[in-house]
Amino acid sequence: MRTVNAYAAPSSTAPLEPVTITRRDVGPHDVLIEIAYAGICHSDIHTVNGDWGPQPYPLVPGHEIVGTVAEVGPEVTGHRVGDRVGVGCMVNSCGQCTNCRSNDEQYCLEGMVPTYGGGDRDGTITQGGYSTHVVVDAGFVLRVPESLDVAAAAPLLCAGITTYSPLRRWGAGPGRKVAVVGLGGLGHMAVKIAHALGAEVTVLSQSLKKQEDGLRLGADHYFATGDPATFEQLAGTFDLILNTVSASIDVDAYLSLLAVDGTLVNVGAPAESLSLNVFSLIGARRSYAGSMIGGIAETQEMLDFCAEHGIVPATELIGADQINDAYRRVLASDVRYRFVIDAATLA
Amino acid sequence: MRTVNAYAAPSSTAPLEPVTITRRDVGPHDVLIEIAYAGICHSDIHTVNGDWGPQPYPLVPGHEIVGTVAEVGPEVTGHRVGDRVGVGCMVNSCGQCTNCRSNDEQYCLEGMVPTYGGGDRDGTITQGGYSTHVVVDAGFVLRVPESLDVAAAAPLLCAGITTYSPLRRWGAGPGRKVAVVGLGGLGHMAVKIAHALGAEVTVLSQSLKKQEDGLRLGADHYFATGDPATFEQLAGTFDLILNTVSASIDVDAYLSLLAVDGTLVNVGAPAESLSLNVFSLIGARRSYAGSMIGGIAETQEMLDFCAEHGIVPATELIGADQINDAYRRVLASDVRYRFVIDAATLA
Repeated sequence: MRTVNAYAAPSSTAPLEPVTITRRDVGPHDVLIEIAYAGICHSDIHTVNGDWGPQPYPLVPGHEIVGTVAEVGPEVTGHRVGDRVGVGCMVNSCGQCTNCRSNDEQYCLEGMVPTYGGGDRDGTITQGGYSTHVVVDAGFVLRVPESLDVAAAAPLLCAGITTYSPLRRWGAGPGRKVAVVGLGGLGHMAVKIAHALGAEVTVLSQSLKKQEDGLRLGADHYFATGDPATFEQLAGTFDLILNTVSASIDVDAYLSLLAVDGTLVNVGAPAESLSLNVFSLIGARRSYAGSMIGGIAETQEMLDFCAEHGIVPATELIGADQINDAYRRVLASDVRYRFVIDAATLA
Repeated sequence: MRTVNAYAAPSSTAPLEPVTITRRDVGPHDVLIEIAYAGICHSDIHTVNGDWGPQPYPLVPGHEIVGTVAEVGPEVTGHRVGDRVGVGCMVNSCGQCTNCRSNDEQYCLEGMVPTYGGGDRDGTITQGGYSTHVVVDAGFVLRVPESLDVAAAAPLLCAGITTYSPLRRWGAGPGRKVAVVGLGGLGHMAVKIAHALGAEVTVLSQSLKKQEDGLRLGADHYFATGDPATFEQLAGTFDLILNTVSASIDVDAYLSLLAVDGTLVNVGAPAESLSLNVFSLIGARRSYAGSMIGGIAETQEMLDFCAEHGIVPATELIGADQINDAYRRVLASDVRYRFVIDAATLA
């Protein structure tokens, strides 16, 4: 075991604060990573606040991790000391179930092990990336191509794969009309990736406040959902709508924007149930679907795709002592588009 | 114009009664059909009762029609006098929109013309199949293979295509686990077709009352949804669930029965909105979809498939004077599984 510096939430209500935590010894299949950068995901805030259920405290958030391999266990063959690597939202799974065997570890039937706040397979509680080091099973460590800007790459591990996976699965590409609902951390990645995939991209945002940004990020069109005319004008338009907003939406209104065989995919979810009229689906053979991050192989594919297309998130680099202020600003939608913590400030 | 016998609902509340109606002259592209049999669909009852909105009365229901070609217009090439033919839920569409051009006439952007109670493209109100004759645009007339039992074939035109289309689209076939919710007119066709497609078929019915029937129709398994243990036992099981029940369901409960990438498809719809928790979708990349009948080419494909596999509905033949009693029995689920009107009793 080694003791390392981190930033943790002491409870669901108190601000995050500096702590020390222990990391397990490097096992035969483990990789010790010296963390360089960790992104702040909106779900970090939901989780530490207890919005999604009770948590073990103190809790170190962070599941958008980039760093350098500092040590590998004797059985590790895919990573070497000095490699640039990343860790996303999960650090283990059973490896045996039908979903794990299909490279869908995120849907592991035993429950995948989340990067923080989960029970790891060795019985310990996982602690996340707002820290100087982490020890992770090699099967959940990604290669981060050298051509990616290392400070900006961290959010790809969650925001990148969360949007890349459904865009690929539901066929975003040339000749396809894709709408992205919400231009936040996830949404701005969705726009960049959908554009790189060759789709015709429309941003659906509450207002036109970020229109210039949206078009610069690669959107072809930008509409305000606060304007009811938008829903009339765009009725039956899209093959795919990716909803990156966790707040409740009027599902029927968004379904009405889909063409025949179109799909509305949620990657965020409100805690409360939503209402929809089945006629919204039946009337044009539409689907309403959900998607959660992506498997490890697909996450690697996403990193390689982003490297090839020069895609990284728009980020604002902060020191650890700015984390609480960053949380406040994320909740106020005052970030374009992702905070990244410089782990050097934790040392 | 010709005057023909029919059975019509005089209002949303009065029983159906014998009437005479007029059918248009056979135009260049039209086919005059001498009707032999017409099925009674649950949606006939919903429609004449005004459950789905106001209707023009008197209204002749019936969109499961089988008969013989009695006359064809000079431009008709696909049908000849004496051919056995059928008509389903629609009798016209714009023919020009992107959906019509993709053989999805049921989703015509101008609105397909329903077989009864709709405004036809010549300005008249359509009247359905509880009648001795009907005149239909040749593009909406199906060939009914001679090997199909003609008295039993009529319900294929609605119940058959409504279930065949989503079963094919969502990949029912060898190695796939398909559940059918509800064993009524639609459900019993779904079981037969899914079985013929090679899927492993499970019936999910409120009770085990029709279990013997279900297994004889081709189901491999039969479970009662009234028993909460069913939802525990079958969690994460199915690739596809076809919900043939129009009543409200607990969407989250049925979604929980789907494996990763599974789809719940509604072919019926309750008038009221349903509630679902998006986590039910996100937790296993599930989809909730809807489907409405099928296109004309696909309906022909279904008829040919059913002929090849010897599939016809289980029917009870009635005379026209039994229609009101049959409506009462359909509402009481007292039919196994479809009433068919012998049009000879209308003559």
